[in-house]
Amino acid sequence: MCQLLGMNCNTPTDVTFSFAGFAQRGGRTDHHADGWGIAFFEGRGARLFIDSSAACSSPVAELIRRYPIKSRNVISHIRKATVGDVRLENCHPFVRELWGRYWVFAHNGDLKDYAPRLHGHFHPVGDTDSERAFCWLMQELAKAHASVPPVEELTRTLRELTPQIASHGTFNMLLSNGQALWAHASTKLCYVVRQHPFSNARLADEDLCVNFAEHTTPSDRVAVVATTPLTSNERWTPFAPGELKVFVDGAPVA
Amino acid sequence: MCQLLGMNCNTPTDVTFSFAGFAQRGGRTDHHADGWGIAFFEGRGARLFIDSSAACSSPVAELIRRYPIKSRNVISHIRKATVGDVRLENCHPFVRELWGRYWVFAHNGDLKDYAPRLHGHFHPVGDTDSERAFCWLMQELAKAHASVPPVEELTRTLRELTPQIASHGTFNMLLSNGQALWAHASTKLCYVVRQHPFSNARLADEDLCVNFAEHTTPSDRVAVVATTPLTSNERWTPFAPGELKVFVDGAPVA
Repeated sequence: MCQLLGMNCNTPTDVTFSFAGFAQRGGRTDHHADGWGIAFFEGRGARLFIDSSAACSSPVAELIRRYPIKSRNVISHIRKATVGDVRLENCHPFVRELWGRYWVFAHNGDLKDYAPRLHGHFHPVGDTDSERAFCWLMQELAKAHASVPPVEELTRTLRELTPQIASHGTFNMLLSNGQALWAHASTKLCYVVRQHPFSNARLADEDLCVNFAEHTTPSDRVAVVATTPLTSNERWTPFAPGELKVFVDGAPVA
Repeated sequence: MCQLLGMNCNTPTDVTFSFAGFAQRGGRTDHHADGWGIAFFEGRGARLFIDSSAACSSPVAELIRRYPIKSRNVISHIRKATVGDVRLENCHPFVRELWGRYWVFAHNGDLKDYAPRLHGHFHPVGDTDSERAFCWLMQELAKAHASVPPVEELTRTLRELTPQIASHGTFNMLLSNGQALWAHASTKLCYVVRQHPFSNARLADEDLCVNFAEHTTPSDRVAVVATTPLTSNERWTPFAPGELKVFVDGAPVA
């Protein structure tokens, strides 16, 4: 099993605090040491950092912890290899272009005997069930819409598509095109929304505390989605099994 | 005008020496300060680092200079914005997936009034003429072959396609799918092959010297392609105008 971290904000925000705790699960406080990755949207552009070494000791992860890249949509993943070798091409997140937009995807869980028909223009480079699921999702989105539709329409399409993948096993996933963050839970996913009045947060995986009031303005709003709560003193809301949520401007859309 | 750097090797090699000199052109010894990028293939996987700040002062470039990522195919680019704003989505190299392989592309030069018909599945995310050219190239490769063909066949197809882009202006470019490095010159590109017996090389842009004999084995072979020679004491071979070369295992293929 792997671990997921997602962030969606109404203003570009750095993820260094959450990532500091999350990266500890990559080999130190937990056993997900088979690579990791993080993607940041900046406008329409996306930066992807992936590494097949453990997140807790990777020089690239060290850079992310120290260099505050500000983004409105972030997806990160720490891998515990189950299907597919420990190789760079099997590290999440995966990125593809569709309709002149980058799409970023990360998955946690196993999909048993999952061999969807990939007759479109998206093909896996590595050999994980996750990348197969992502390629199928992109193929079906491309068939369902002629160009990039509004977020609500995309959400409707994803509500039809995600159960078809989830029926093959566990499908906890994060997806973003830079406009919104979609999160689907089969088993484990939870989220917290941070907004005014901001308070202290204490990491569950590292002895680190931050007072968000010192780093924010009253209008800032940030949603953080993770496999399990990253902080020990905030109220995280668990996803229901089979639930798909979309986050825009730092909050879940009703 | 921008600057290009490519490396193709018969064994995974780090690019830190060449990149140290090249990055100086990103704002220090030259005026290409509008972003930069570098992509490394590792097997079928690819790492892409891009940044819209100047390469000479970027924390990500600093990481690349210090952290020796070993790769058999590397493409790097330093940008001087002519078409398209200074934004992350306009930084080269660009990456797309085709036939279950990543393709990495960087371009130097201007393409005047270049608006190719993009009726396929590759669309630019940013607004550079370069990304349009890359999308057209991918579209035409996808039409010409049903799956990834041998390097010689790809080279034949690229020999037909590149002049069609080059007729619109200056098209110095580097392209790789991890198996080979293709380089096309309209105006400025040169290369050097380093092989046994290895000797000293002195960077043209920084006071740095390396004795490759200390860092190599006799069977190693490395081809480096750049806009202008990166070292002051090696013989670089210039490309002829309109020339397309393909490098495999550290040497140009006849």
